[in-house]
Amino acid sequence: MAEVESRSALIVGAGLAGSLLAVYLARAGWTVRLVERRHDPREKQFAEGRSINLAISARGIHALHRAGLEERVMRTALRMYGRMIHPIQGEPHLHPYSNDPTRGIHSVSRSALNLALLDAAAAEPRVTLQFERRCTNIDATQGSASFAVEGTESVETYCADVVVGADGAFSAMRACLQRTERFDYTQTFLTHGYKEMHIPRVETGAHAPFAMHPSALHIWPRGASMMIALPNPDGSFTCTLFWPWDSNADSPQEPNFATVRTAEEARAVFIRDYPDALALMPTLSEDFERNIAGSMVTVRCSPWSANGRVTLIGDAAHAVVPFYGQGANASFEDCEALADALAANSTVADALRAYEVARKANSNAIADMALANFIEMRDHSAKPSFSRKKKYARLLHRIFGNFFEPEYDLVSFSTVPYAEAQARGRRNELWMRLSIIIPIVLFWNALIFGLRMSGYTPLADQILNCGLLLAGILVFAALAQRRTGVLR
Amino acid sequence: MAEVESRSALIVGAGLAGSLLAVYLARAGWTVRLVERRHDPREKQFAEGRSINLAISARGIHALHRAGLEERVMRTALRMYGRMIHPIQGEPHLHPYSNDPTRGIHSVSRSALNLALLDAAAAEPRVTLQFERRCTNIDATQGSASFAVEGTESVETYCADVVVGADGAFSAMRACLQRTERFDYTQTFLTHGYKEMHIPRVETGAHAPFAMHPSALHIWPRGASMMIALPNPDGSFTCTLFWPWDSNADSPQEPNFATVRTAEEARAVFIRDYPDALALMPTLSEDFERNIAGSMVTVRCSPWSANGRVTLIGDAAHAVVPFYGQGANASFEDCEALADALAANSTVADALRAYEVARKANSNAIADMALANFIEMRDHSAKPSFSRKKKYARLLHRIFGNFFEPEYDLVSFSTVPYAEAQARGRRNELWMRLSIIIPIVLFWNALIFGLRMSGYTPLADQILNCGLLLAGILVFAALAQRRTGVLR
Repeated sequence: MAEVESRSALIVGAGLAGSLLAVYLARAGWTVRLVERRHDPREKQFAEGRSINLAISARGIHALHRAGLEERVMRTALRMYGRMIHPIQGEPHLHPYSNDPTRGIHSVSRSALNLALLDAAAAEPRVTLQFERRCTNIDATQGSASFAVEGTESVETYCADVVVGADGAFSAMRACLQRTERFDYTQTFLTHGYKEMHIPRVETGAHAPFAMHPSALHIWPRGASMMIALPNPDGSFTCTLFWPWDSNADSPQEPNFATVRTAEEARAVFIRDYPDALALMPTLSEDFERNIAGSMVTVRCSPWSANGRVTLIGDAAHAVVPFYGQGANASFEDCEALADALAANSTVADALRAYEVARKANSNAIADMALANFIEMRDHSAKPSFSRKKKYARLLHRIFGNFFEPEYDLVSFSTVPYAEAQARGRRNELWMRLSIIIPIVLFWNALIFGLRMSGYTPLADQILNCGLLLAGILVFAALAQRRTGVLR
Repeated sequence: MAEVESRSALIVGAGLAGSLLAVYLARAGWTVRLVERRHDPREKQFAEGRSINLAISARGIHALHRAGLEERVMRTALRMYGRMIHPIQGEPHLHPYSNDPTRGIHSVSRSALNLALLDAAAAEPRVTLQFERRCTNIDATQGSASFAVEGTESVETYCADVVVGADGAFSAMRACLQRTERFDYTQTFLTHGYKEMHIPRVETGAHAPFAMHPSALHIWPRGASMMIALPNPDGSFTCTLFWPWDSNADSPQEPNFATVRTAEEARAVFIRDYPDALALMPTLSEDFERNIAGSMVTVRCSPWSANGRVTLIGDAAHAVVPFYGQGANASFEDCEALADALAANSTVADALRAYEVARKANSNAIADMALANFIEMRDHSAKPSFSRKKKYARLLHRIFGNFFEPEYDLVSFSTVPYAEAQARGRRNELWMRLSIIIPIVLFWNALIFGLRMSGYTPLADQILNCGLLLAGILVFAALAQRRTGVLR
């Protein structure tokens, strides 16, 4: 190993992002130390019951392909082509994700994906893997981090040219950065919690061994709350309840984790709200009582780096809620962007700046879109108007092609930057409105013109005046609704 | 002291809010322990050079009056009736704060105010005051807080029925709450820093011993940056520079703390940007080099209480930037609200909930208004259009009375809740726009009507069509400018 110049990286956290970054950097010639708080999952299984299934889409596949891992991970993935909406009464119906019937997102097991990435990292001769070491402090000036070794009194300190925090939404590395000067920071918890439930494989039925259609993401939208289910390779489904933490005086019927506490209370809610799922859930009572409800947080911070030596990736830099299925995909894009920036810049400090510029706006965009998608999934998707709107959007996409590519397609089936996907989604929304308004205005003008030409001038004037009044009301409404600038 | 029931309070931080709350609670029969990290300022002076002068207005006076401290504090206060705007060239001119010439805000010394409050707290037999004790931990379940005693190894732990964090923008109490479940938290630093400067008293001149008019808040608005000056009782002024931290490639001329570092560089900026002030600042070089630039932060968090025993007040709950002069006033209102809630509710838990409900929206409103006021002070106030708008607003206030009371009056000269002041300010803004638009529309209608009556129908139609076109453009602009709802 005769390197002209070997640079060293210290990565804190061997989850999805940390492991993938280790692979990228080791292959680019870096000496990598990858340190994880938990035990080695290759020796004992991960604890189950607190992780939503992952959805991997175009961005994630791109990043895995680059590491040569696409085939291994995708072998056990299940493709979902749309949302299967389960109403309280009546048959479930599929909303496809895209006009292109081959486009789907992939349900994968988080633990299997993490194992694949850890194996790949461990196979790199330049990677040193260490477990059961909790990060206690960082020194951004020295480029070092200290770790308490589990079960001992000893503390180990490692130095590197770049120190990367990949230690998740409750990052210890980020907590250290928060104590530095002028570090902007926001953590916002969702008013809803989540609880994992289970639908086992079945021996008979149309989709056996699956109890429901295996090629869809199942949703039970119920207004303020919902349940979803993702298929697993063994025929089972992992279900997740998303309920408010607290009761709402305005809708006392609504289930929530504060008042629905026992298995019997949960069963009563399922009989009323999720009757078709109830029949498929023999372990409902045990699941509900055993699995602890988890919280979901959106984290934003700035800057992502300190002293040109320390930076953050993945959830540590920008935790998002899970409703767009993009958390892991966004983290993988971070790994690509950071590896690219380190390759393209002569100093680490320049690379960290370039990486943050490349990713910050995009991580903000996906955080916003994930929050908006929760409302769409639990509330809008149950409404006929939503279905009509989606169909209209897909029609415009068919007519105008890429110019009108829907936001969902851009986010899930392309690698267009998130911020651009968001902006194009908003532009689509505006054009959809105008595509309604403009024909009305044109028709109205033609009508007035036609009436005048035919000698019905007074009637034409009447119609003109009505339109004028309507336009005035619209201007007023738009003015009033717009947030007025503050005067002092 | 034969109390039927004596309840105990532990207040962490003996700054403005903590000291005033101690007075209120002790007089309401509570046993109060008031613990402060710093040394006793009654023994040694506070460190100078890092505190902006305080502005006390109606809310602060109300709270001080309730504690019987109004007279003592207001004796040395200097009343400021408006903003004295200093252009680069030409004479300074006064923008009065209100139509009512007797309305003004009061420049007071933060240290003198704190001393007055501490004296009042120490004079209460039920208050125990302790200094040089740093809060290291809280136990919300027990209602206890632990303190490291300065200069020793010992730790003291105190229990109370209610524990109140009054330990400022970088609150240690709040940091403990941040480790609890589902605590929403935001800290946002301003892109600008501040540096304190000095204008000494003078022996001669029109305003001697003041070097400038003593009854105004002086502002040198320079677009992205500014300087302000508040009068002190000894004839001097405390000046504060507000400059961006970093240079801006789009306006390289703009001063900032990154590139203007030496006294010579600062002097060059003053010669160009603040020529009239420069002549009054003999210690410019020393001040600029000695005084460290400070950062300004907006902090929001939720909930403000934990376990029904622990809560936050003042900057600890909601640090705001100083540009509305309301930080201390808002903190004093917190003290009143918390004391009132504790008196009106039978349990501490109910009281803390009622206190948060009463104050949360108002603290958000003043945080927003303080940020908006920075832009108004440094940028808008230099423009003739701003002066015209203010004059027009004051005219409407004179005509319509309380219906059109400007936001500044509501915030500074009334005790109307901040959120209501903000909402009424926005409503004023809307009515100001409509008061321009409606006469135009009426005139235009009358014109068309008149032309038709006089037989000029084709001309009337032309004008009508032009107006229609204009209305259409306005609708389109309003639609396009409005943030479109996100569709997925």
